[in-house]
Parts: sequence; C-alpha cells; structure tokens
Amino acid sequence: MISKLIDRIVNTGAPIVVGLAPKLPFVPEEMKKKCFEEKGENLEGAAEAFWQINKEIIDLIYDIVPAVKPQIAMYESFGIPGMIAYKKTVDYAKELGLIVIADIKRGDIGSTSTAYALGHLGSVQVGEYKYQGFDADMATVNPYLGTDGVKPFVDVCNEEDKGIFVLCKTSNPSSGEFQDRLIDGRPLYEHMAEKIEEWGAQSMDGDYSNVGAVVGATYPEMGAKLRKLMPHTYILVPGYGAQGGKGADLVNFFNEDGLGAIVNSSRGIIAAYQQEKYAKFGEENFAGASRAAVEDMLEDIRSAF
Amino acid sequence: MISKLIDRIVNTGAPIVVGLAPKLPFVPEEMKKKCFEEKGENLEGAAEAFWQINKEIIDLIYDIVPAVKPQIAMYESFGIPGMIAYKKTVDYAKELGLIVIADIKRGDIGSTSTAYALGHLGSVQVGEYKYQGFDADMATVNPYLGTDGVKPFVDVCNEEDKGIFVLCKTSNPSSGEFQDRLIDGRPLYEHMAEKIEEWGAQSMDGDYSNVGAVVGATYPEMGAKLRKLMPHTYILVPGYGAQGGKGADLVNFFNEDGLGAIVNSSRGIIAAYQQEKYAKFGEENFAGASRAAVEDMLEDIRSAF
Repeated sequence: MISKLIDRIVNTGAPIVVGLAPKLPFVPEEMKKKCFEEKGENLEGAAEAFWQINKEIIDLIYDIVPAVKPQIAMYESFGIPGMIAYKKTVDYAKELGLIVIADIKRGDIGSTSTAYALGHLGSVQVGEYKYQGFDADMATVNPYLGTDGVKPFVDVCNEEDKGIFVLCKTSNPSSGEFQDRLIDGRPLYEHMAEKIEEWGAQSMDGDYSNVGAVVGATYPEMGAKLRKLMPHTYILVPGYGAQGGKGADLVNFFNEDGLGAIVNSSRGIIAAYQQEKYAKFGEENFAGASRAAVEDMLEDIRSAF
Repeated sequence: MISKLIDRIVNTGAPIVVGLAPKLPFVPEEMKKKCFEEKGENLEGAAEAFWQINKEIIDLIYDIVPAVKPQIAMYESFGIPGMIAYKKTVDYAKELGLIVIADIKRGDIGSTSTAYALGHLGSVQVGEYKYQGFDADMATVNPYLGTDGVKPFVDVCNEEDKGIFVLCKTSNPSSGEFQDRLIDGRPLYEHMAEKIEEWGAQSMDGDYSNVGAVVGATYPEMGAKLRKLMPHTYILVPGYGAQGGKGADLVNFFNEDGLGAIVNSSRGIIAAYQQEKYAKFGEENFAGASRAAVEDMLEDIRSAF
C-alpha cells in the first residue's frame, strides 16, 4: 500500500493529507439548517451535515491531494448516525481514487487488535462469505500494548495490501510525559522508532514499509532525529497549521528526494472559509476555500525546501 | 460513579465483570442459523447473533454481577450492524441495572479525546439539544498521549458522574515491551500508576476515584505492587481464565476489605457451554452455563481469600 500512496504523492506533487475531522461549528449555517430540516436537529441531522461537507470538500480536492484522513472520533461522538457518516465518507473518498487513512488509533491485546484490524482494513468471515466492516486503506495504531497489539495490523497489511501508521511521537503538548522519558539513556519515542522499523521489516513494499509512524509537526527537532532512525518508514505528520506546526519545520520530516513524509492538516483546510484569508469564498463556496487552502499549504511546504 | 460500582459489588458480593466480547464461533449453531435466516448470512446476521447471545446472557447474570464490559472491537469488526448490536447491548444492560464498562481503549490529542469522551460517556450538543451517542457508565482509556489525552475523560467523569479505567499494566504477553521499561529506575507502569492517582485526585468519589486502572491478572506480582502504589484507584483486572490468570493470583489486586478490584472474564463466561465442565447445559441453555461459570468464578475468587 505504501507504494500506492507514494505514487499518488508523486503524481499530485502534494505530500499532503486532508484531515476530515468535522465539527458542527465548521458547517456553514445554510447547510446546517438544511440538514436539520431534512433529518432533524439531532444526531442524524448533525451526521448528515458532516457527510455533506465532507462530500463537497472531497469533490474539490480529490484531484490535487493523494489522501484524506477521517478522524473517527468526530463521527463516533455522534453515535450510530455518526458512524454511518464516517463509512459514507470512507467509501466516497475511495470511489474518487483517494487513499483513505483511518485515524482510529486503535490497539489492544492480540485477539482484540485482530478484530480492529479486520474491521477497518480487512474483512470478517460470516458463514461462507467475507465482508468488510469499514474498508479503509491505512489506519493509525496505538502501540502501548507492544508487539502483540500491533502484529495483527501488520498481518492484515500483508494479506490485504494495506498500511498503518504507528504512534511514535504525537503532536500534542503533553506527548512528552511518557514518550520523552529516557530508557537506557534514550527517549521512549526512539525505542518506539526502532520497533516500528522492526515491524516494518515484515511488510516491505519498495523502499518503504507498510508500517509508517506518526510524528507531530510540533516537534521538528525530534522529527529530524526520527527521520534518520527510521530509513524505511513513512512518517505521517499531524499538527501543521491549527496546532502550530509551520512549513519551515516540515523539511526535517522528509528525505532529500522529497519523499518520506505526508503532512496532515484538518481544521486549516476543512474550515478554511472561516479564516479572514479565505473569507472571499463565502459560506456557499466553503469547499473552494478548502481547495485554496490546500494550494497555499503546498506552496508553504515547497517554499521551505 | 465508582461509588455506584462499589455499591453494586457489595450488594452482589461479586467483584466480577462479565466481558461481552462475542465471536461467531461462540454462538450456538441453532441460534446462528436462525439469525442468518432472519437477517442474512452477512454483517447484519452476525450482529444479530451477537445481540441475541448478549441479551440471553445478560438476562441470566444481571442479578448476580455488578457490571458487564462490552469489548467494542468485536462489534466494530462487523461495521455498522456491529455497532448497532454494541449500542443495543449497552442500552439493554443499563436497563437491567448493570453498570456498563465500555472497553474502548480510546485516547488521542485533547480535542479528539473530548470527542471520544462525549460520545461514549457524555453527550454532544446539536443546535439546542443534547444527545448521547453511546451511553456507557465507564470506559477504558489508553494514556500513551499523556495528560491532555486523558483529561477530557476526567472532565466528563466529573460533569456526568462517570468513570474510566486507564491502561497501566496490560494482560497481554508483550505488554512489558514498553510498559516494563525502566525510567529513573522504575518501570513505566509505576510512573503510569502515579499519574493515574494524580488524575484520580481530580475526581474523587468516596474512598476511591473515578479514575481506575487496568492491571492484568497475568502479572500478579506487579498487581501487588500497583495495589499499594494506587491507594485511591480501583483496578479492573482482565486476563482471568482464558488468558491464564488464576483465582489465587487475584488476591494481590484487592485491599484487605475485599474491595479495590473487579475481575473480568469474557470467553470463560460467555462461551462456558463449550467447556466440558458445562457441557450438561447444552447449546439451548448456553446462558445457564454462563451463569454457572460466574458462580464458579466467584467461588474461585472467594476461596483464594
């Protein structure tokens, strides 16, 4: 799968993933009103609004970015209707040729991780047939439980040509509380990086493995170190934009050939129309503002190289 | 919430939680056939089978245990129909007065953890109204991202009188890969224990806090140490039975008054009828076998004290 992602990055020239993490305040007023009228001012109406903004944004960005990253928490928060909107978003993005990175951060004991891996990246057997629960291309994985929590995902990567990104050094302010603690003189995230390379060795796909790493844009020095420590690992970089990461900081996460990393922006793109800079698009053309924000982000990254 | 759980533990005399982690091979043949005939040999049929076994088991154990723990991965694996079966299970167990511990192991950056916390333990605002997505009483939380990934759950505990169990030392064979590594001379799980007490201090409810810890029955010596390190923390103990934990090992997780811990068993109870010991119940009375298995587990724990 990682080679497919790299192909799309090369073809679009955009090492960018659009984070589809909708919130009700991001939805244009008119659209929200329409969804509430049609489905009710309830979970169904809210989920419909998420699906509608996602659809319009996907329609306007699918030809200029390689991938989208739906953040499942935003949908899960709205119960079953939210999960249905999540699934529709995944399926629609794939239909238009986008690679879908499910931001699910799952991880559990072996047998339970298997259930997550099959549900989000593989398929389950029911009697004589196989079915996909949520059919994403890649997923984020939490490694706190160690190898037997990650291995089932690696197995599915191999069986179904899928990919994962394992949390290594996350973008949030308190990520250092555990991840930066020194073990044998080196921070936990470096030990994690070694494990990620080790897991990845079991699922190579060209120069990189199907086992990527999550490293936050908010920690560029650590990014530079981790880039070197994980030569076969693609890095998913959250934290650009709204969380504070800047274009100039991103260089550290890439290799010299311009590969090795894909940068996520969520709010900065999907709610771009709410920024003064993109106000001219107006609520009606909120998705046009998202497209412009992608183009500006690309320019910001390119200018840093 | 923890005081409610303790009340129910005292009233039933059973520090036991039944893990509702269904798999198709656990479903009696006749019931599976019936569900496939009614809903199809597909995700809907499988999810219906999960809901039907859960319902029968809940009906036969709700008066002798304080709580159930649905493992959401098993449902998520079966997509939207699976999630619907999960929700029906949570709602039904609550209707019968059981405390529902959602085994979701969620955890993310602050704003995303908020979405999970509101979706599983709180409510979301839609226009003028508030709605519950999945309305459990307690949930398991993955702390790899540090305080700002856990705090939103603690906030919801305080606002809605709910509870969480934070992963500390998990029951799986490879849990030690990161959790046992020494930081300043002490294993990571002990540092985690200190944080759990610290987070819990913000949500006290009687002698214990609403912030519990997950410590596997498979590591009884660490359990004894952690019991002492976390005087205000209730311990959720998975790994009994199928995973290898024994009754005699459990004593370590409890305080002298018999409180302080609640032990989970999943397969050992929900698929009890498949064990030779309970074969006399037969497939038709699989839930009767589950009840007998709960009684035997209770005897096993009591005899250890």
